[in-house]
Amino acid sequence: MYIENVNSPADVKKLSIGQLEQLADEMRGLLIRKLSNHGGHVGPNLGMVEATIAIHYVFNSPVDKIVFDVSHQSYAHKMLTGRCEAFMKPDAYDRVSGYSEPSESEHDHFVIGHTSTSISLASGLAKARDLHGGHENVIAVIGDGSLSGGEAFEGLNVGAELRTNFIVIVNDNQMSIAENHGGLYQNLQLLRETEGKAECNFFRAMGYDYLYVADGNNVAELIEAMQRIKDIYHPVVLHINTLKGYGYRHAEEQKERFHWSMPFDVESGKDKVDLSHIPDYGDFTARYLIDEMKHRPELVALTAGTPAVFGFTPDRRKEAGSQFIDMGIAEEQAVAMASGIAKGGGKPVFGVYSTFIQRAYDQVSQDLCINGNPALMLVFWGGLGTMNDVTHLGFFDIPLLCNIPNLVYLAPTCIEEYISMMSWAICQTACPVAIRVPSNGIQHRDIAPVADYAQVMNQYEVTRRGSRIAMVALGSFYQLGEEVADRLGELFGIEATLINPRFISGVDGTLLEELKQGHELVITLEDGVLDGGFGEKIARYYGTSDMKVLCKGARKEFVDRFDLKELLLDNRLTVEQIVEDCMEILK
Amino acid sequence: MYIENVNSPADVKKLSIGQLEQLADEMRGLLIRKLSNHGGHVGPNLGMVEATIAIHYVFNSPVDKIVFDVSHQSYAHKMLTGRCEAFMKPDAYDRVSGYSEPSESEHDHFVIGHTSTSISLASGLAKARDLHGGHENVIAVIGDGSLSGGEAFEGLNVGAELRTNFIVIVNDNQMSIAENHGGLYQNLQLLRETEGKAECNFFRAMGYDYLYVADGNNVAELIEAMQRIKDIYHPVVLHINTLKGYGYRHAEEQKERFHWSMPFDVESGKDKVDLSHIPDYGDFTARYLIDEMKHRPELVALTAGTPAVFGFTPDRRKEAGSQFIDMGIAEEQAVAMASGIAKGGGKPVFGVYSTFIQRAYDQVSQDLCINGNPALMLVFWGGLGTMNDVTHLGFFDIPLLCNIPNLVYLAPTCIEEYISMMSWAICQTACPVAIRVPSNGIQHRDIAPVADYAQVMNQYEVTRRGSRIAMVALGSFYQLGEEVADRLGELFGIEATLINPRFISGVDGTLLEELKQGHELVITLEDGVLDGGFGEKIARYYGTSDMKVLCKGARKEFVDRFDLKELLLDNRLTVEQIVEDCMEILK
Repeated sequence: MYIENVNSPADVKKLSIGQLEQLADEMRGLLIRKLSNHGGHVGPNLGMVEATIAIHYVFNSPVDKIVFDVSHQSYAHKMLTGRCEAFMKPDAYDRVSGYSEPSESEHDHFVIGHTSTSISLASGLAKARDLHGGHENVIAVIGDGSLSGGEAFEGLNVGAELRTNFIVIVNDNQMSIAENHGGLYQNLQLLRETEGKAECNFFRAMGYDYLYVADGNNVAELIEAMQRIKDIYHPVVLHINTLKGYGYRHAEEQKERFHWSMPFDVESGKDKVDLSHIPDYGDFTARYLIDEMKHRPELVALTAGTPAVFGFTPDRRKEAGSQFIDMGIAEEQAVAMASGIAKGGGKPVFGVYSTFIQRAYDQVSQDLCINGNPALMLVFWGGLGTMNDVTHLGFFDIPLLCNIPNLVYLAPTCIEEYISMMSWAICQTACPVAIRVPSNGIQHRDIAPVADYAQVMNQYEVTRRGSRIAMVALGSFYQLGEEVADRLGELFGIEATLINPRFISGVDGTLLEELKQGHELVITLEDGVLDGGFGEKIARYYGTSDMKVLCKGARKEFVDRFDLKELLLDNRLTVEQIVEDCMEILK
Repeated sequence: MYIENVNSPADVKKLSIGQLEQLADEMRGLLIRKLSNHGGHVGPNLGMVEATIAIHYVFNSPVDKIVFDVSHQSYAHKMLTGRCEAFMKPDAYDRVSGYSEPSESEHDHFVIGHTSTSISLASGLAKARDLHGGHENVIAVIGDGSLSGGEAFEGLNVGAELRTNFIVIVNDNQMSIAENHGGLYQNLQLLRETEGKAECNFFRAMGYDYLYVADGNNVAELIEAMQRIKDIYHPVVLHINTLKGYGYRHAEEQKERFHWSMPFDVESGKDKVDLSHIPDYGDFTARYLIDEMKHRPELVALTAGTPAVFGFTPDRRKEAGSQFIDMGIAEEQAVAMASGIAKGGGKPVFGVYSTFIQRAYDQVSQDLCINGNPALMLVFWGGLGTMNDVTHLGFFDIPLLCNIPNLVYLAPTCIEEYISMMSWAICQTACPVAIRVPSNGIQHRDIAPVADYAQVMNQYEVTRRGSRIAMVALGSFYQLGEEVADRLGELFGIEATLINPRFISGVDGTLLEELKQGHELVITLEDGVLDGGFGEKIARYYGTSDMKVLCKGARKEFVDRFDLKELLLDNRLTVEQIVEDCMEILK
């Protein structure tokens, strides 16, 4: 195998075209083997094997600098830059991350996991080079799906003014995670159909020179094109037409399903472990919303390129019809459009990952909350135990959202409460609402549904009345609160008061005052970072009183590929540790 | 005067072209009179008079919905929609805001003050209309300068897919606040030069039908064009070429100076009150950075379309040459590019308003802080007393930035400390740094400069050692802390300990422990919103101890055109109130 002898890009340059093609086959085989056993991004990587080989054949990394957008298509790059072991040996599969990672290799320049950032980051590398008088090539590699994000546009706009070497490779596989959405994609189609010759050309309109490669999975064609733009002294776009999932039939045919996959059976393309029977908040949400849409023509579900987060499979999107909108990867647009829809009398429901709502802070604040329009945002995968790549942590949505005026941020503790809250949020017209969808699996509680949360605004629910200790257990940490309360009873005979605060964005002053009777300690439990979060508001409230407050949550830090148990231990978030810390304070 | 008889758009429709031209002259006269006496956005409004008249002549507001981007060009719109009094009578000048404001009129649909949002918001109105089966026109009016922001692109991209009536009027006055930057502007120039006939057309590439008006200050031409696109049943861009500042010679000639102006003398165009001799942090910063640039070729100043915020006048931008970059209005790009420059060995310094750094949360977190690249951000106009329009509050940067891991957020208390911090931040290569530039005027303190803030990371400075009360007075509230301490001494003989925390993003546990000796109460003072901010971290720290903590800052709320004194009173932030609240706790 050629791949065994590739320890760095220099080894790629020694091979003939025929050998490079064989190298591509070998790499594809390794990718399919690893991904089918380990899971990961399938389609994006399979489609980029040839282009990555061509890049390393033509350019001189790490002197020439390559920045991969999202970097979930950088596996082939990792294989060619001294990290192939992690794709060959099952024992070593976890030695590399699923994204570009400077700590692994000098060929990676940034930790990247959110989309649409490569051109902007690369423009900075190019500017630094120009300040130093350097001459290396700077290359941003971006997928067509990532082009829908505003930051990519801002980067293109500024990159065009560099007037020095600046290369943008657009990997056009005609897909985002799901299908592409937006007017831009008509132009990409026109460019493909005319083999890049159409006069009306988005990239030329943005100030770029332009080159097109019709077969972006043909190593020879790619090398020829890249040789033409190497060392070019102005901004240029190389538009390559690739096939997502190339070389693995199931991935070619089911592009959305194979964007990212759990371990799968290579022959059938089916997941090795079928989790589809496990109830799931996303799946539930799509079913709920589609039912509601039938008698509410004003209800419309919005996604920013990640329809699966709230269960909108291709079939369901079809069923929802014009009551479903995918913006492509464009969270800012999603939030602002939601505000506009709500203003116009529609009822928008934006489903979004905790880690991606970060991309729309200003829109939540300005476009939505200053205007007080009654849109609903469903924030999924918020919590410590959701995604564990440093770029995808669900730790930060509470501080991000709960400090924005006018926004009601709710934390249901079980599916019954989720339904109750969603049902109210869809009917009400008073204010913008966000719901932090529980991330600890579907839990059930015997609760009385609340018809109107506006009537109980910022009123917490006391679920057990006790004394000495009161536990304010937020959202998906409610069950942890129950366990701690149980343990306090079992071990120390303390009947703790247990509280479901329901509202992340408000403090129930009346209840907190009441707790001063018969309680010495209030514990807050929140499934996220402590800094700027929910617990600190309770600590501030009691700051001038004798009440002791212990805030439990995660330390402010970026953690990567962590073990959840260790993270909880490290933050003293196990039941045992919380009980221990309580008793230490009560001493 | 015709304007006196225009009480609603219906009255505009009754006039002949000749009368509309006279109306435009009258409106321009009123605008110049009001703005020269009152201050406000001059150039953007003068350039849009004819287009606004044409819009109201052709379309049927408020059934047809017009959304003005940034809305600082909506004065003419206000004059034609029943609010002319506020432009005619000096007593009534303050009856309308400087931005669109639904509470003033049914012709305004959103409170808007940040750029690049109109297309996204309007796309929501259009979608709501389609869900309801309505037929009204939805019109976004956006300046060429605002097109550089990513949200505008995201909106254009999605708007193109609506496939129903969706009208975008691009008011191309060839200016942002300062000159435009970005590759896109070459295309706009090409379109102007070819009278809209160039084949390579950004808007067509984005999926829009397209129409061009060469003289965007000619009412007849504008009306004709708008009549052609009224009720059109697909997305269309109407590109109008206007003159910023049209009809007032000084504004036409000095476009950047007259984008927004304090009251000015109409004859000379000079500010009525010359404030240029008052020392100012922005001016100081540009001078400092330009001096440093001379011996640091790697130093580069970045702005996102607001160079004046840190003193980069046109002359200074010229002097800085390639060491100054304006991205246009594109904060996401600015932060990501800064990260790239820092990674490449350059030293980027991004100067930004508090209210606009909000537009780049995800880039600060992902592109910059996860990567730990040593860029510097200078955050200006953070604080309660800076801007008082609801869309431009400087209240939120502390919660936004201080909870992001890896970012060192510093709060100097005087110019000497600002220099010390900036000087360190420019030299160090360990971490991303932001500095909250004081907003309470240039204050002086006799401090020992700190050569290396990394050596004293998160260590607070004790400036007065006392007992009973310790005051942690952050940044531009340090002087308030001094006053409170003085008053406590004068009135009650309490020698309070006074602390300059320096670090917004960290807690000095060692010092806070020490304070437990001899102190009963810690007061935190911060010039911003309390929720998610600095003080709450101190409250959390002391939550399990006997120390009382009183956090002083502003309540979480959006306030508009407030009186600062009243706001401070309302939040119990006067010296007297703080002293009173302290003594109440000590009782």
